[in-house]
Amino acid sequence: MAQALKKYMKKFPYSYTLGAFPTFELVKNQARHVEAVYLHSMMDSPALDREIRQLCEEKHVRCIVNDKIVEKLREKENCFVIGVFNKYEEPLTKDTNHIVLVNPSDMGNMGTIMRTSLGFGIRDLAIIQPAVDIFNPKVLRASMGAVFQMHCHYYNSFEEYMEECGERSMYPFMLGGNRYLQEFQHDKNRKFSLIFGNEATGLDPSFKDVGEPIMIRHNNQIDSLNLSMAVGIALYEFTK
Amino acid sequence: MAQALKKYMKKFPYSYTLGAFPTFELVKNQARHVEAVYLHSMMDSPALDREIRQLCEEKHVRCIVNDKIVEKLREKENCFVIGVFNKYEEPLTKDTNHIVLVNPSDMGNMGTIMRTSLGFGIRDLAIIQPAVDIFNPKVLRASMGAVFQMHCHYYNSFEEYMEECGERSMYPFMLGGNRYLQEFQHDKNRKFSLIFGNEATGLDPSFKDVGEPIMIRHNNQIDSLNLSMAVGIALYEFTK
Repeated sequence: MAQALKKYMKKFPYSYTLGAFPTFELVKNQARHVEAVYLHSMMDSPALDREIRQLCEEKHVRCIVNDKIVEKLREKENCFVIGVFNKYEEPLTKDTNHIVLVNPSDMGNMGTIMRTSLGFGIRDLAIIQPAVDIFNPKVLRASMGAVFQMHCHYYNSFEEYMEECGERSMYPFMLGGNRYLQEFQHDKNRKFSLIFGNEATGLDPSFKDVGEPIMIRHNNQIDSLNLSMAVGIALYEFTK
Repeated sequence: MAQALKKYMKKFPYSYTLGAFPTFELVKNQARHVEAVYLHSMMDSPALDREIRQLCEEKHVRCIVNDKIVEKLREKENCFVIGVFNKYEEPLTKDTNHIVLVNPSDMGNMGTIMRTSLGFGIRDLAIIQPAVDIFNPKVLRASMGAVFQMHCHYYNSFEEYMEECGERSMYPFMLGGNRYLQEFQHDKNRKFSLIFGNEATGLDPSFKDVGEPIMIRHNNQIDSLNLSMAVGIALYEFTK
């Protein structure tokens, strides 16, 4: 595979972690999906070099010095470590709380949502197509490698998700929701899914009939909160 | 001035809004600081064109078609409206709640923080130098023009800010804070300042002695929340 490596494209069945931090998280958490870790001979930290080699040995991952490949794949000059891995999907855990993103399109938001979600203890993320690729190197960077500790699963439609995971409380976040998050108490005995729409268009009005619609109250000086901000605030409140 | 316009640099006393949306917000809210609005003759929406000309007339702002200037200053081909304005500072309102950012360095975060802060009704933002330029076009875009409805003021040190605005409750957000935001009730009769450190380094430990330090509880799967996320969650909780 090494000879054929090309700069990231969404359609490829593999992707890359660019830089030491996300590569560590990749090898630590998903070693079985890793093809190889490539190092550049100009790596400026012997300690880091040692640590990566050790981790790769432990996890039985090939660790190869190859300046050409690193230079071809990296986007910044100061990137000396690259992980190459095969994309994968994991089934969601049925009896846990979920985040559901309908048609998310911004890579930075996607990464930030994963990092925040992991921090608040929700590891299961359902993504309704069409959507951004969770393994785009830009998502990986924004997530600080959190993606490798999440269970992410793509669905072709919300209905497909419902069929699989419907036995739970559904909370679509949308303008015109019945209840303000600020005053809302959810039933702590039931598992829940927090559902969010696309950055530009939000959720379709039909989601009003899916569970209990919720709004985050803010004044009308702004049109809406940023998507990752809305998800983060909802996560904070629901896991309090 | 028009002849001398150069691509944005931090040191210039003027800056630009790139695109219709932030330019609207600029002219609507800060007309007295605007030098001119430049339109490109290839603007694809006659309705938008009319709206901008009308607003400029109302606000006594020069509105000029000049393809050369627009092409020179824009960063994307699909930008047909540019506002040129002189940077300004506004004094903070003393008897309102404040956000204080110590050495913020990320442009996207800065914009998102302003947009969120405006939405939750806190318009006064103190920024401790060194810091990102709030009028960098990238900040303006991330803020969706919210910056033009905020009062932002730079201080050379936190002490300088304290001297001017000290009569209030101070809440530094930091690891090792005494209290979790999740369980904390602030005194609703006193004005407050929510204080946040730099993206990479956080607040210096000495801030522990400044008011009541607070943490947002999350698990140890992540190192920290993203800065704008932490500010947004704190804003949500304090303005509930």
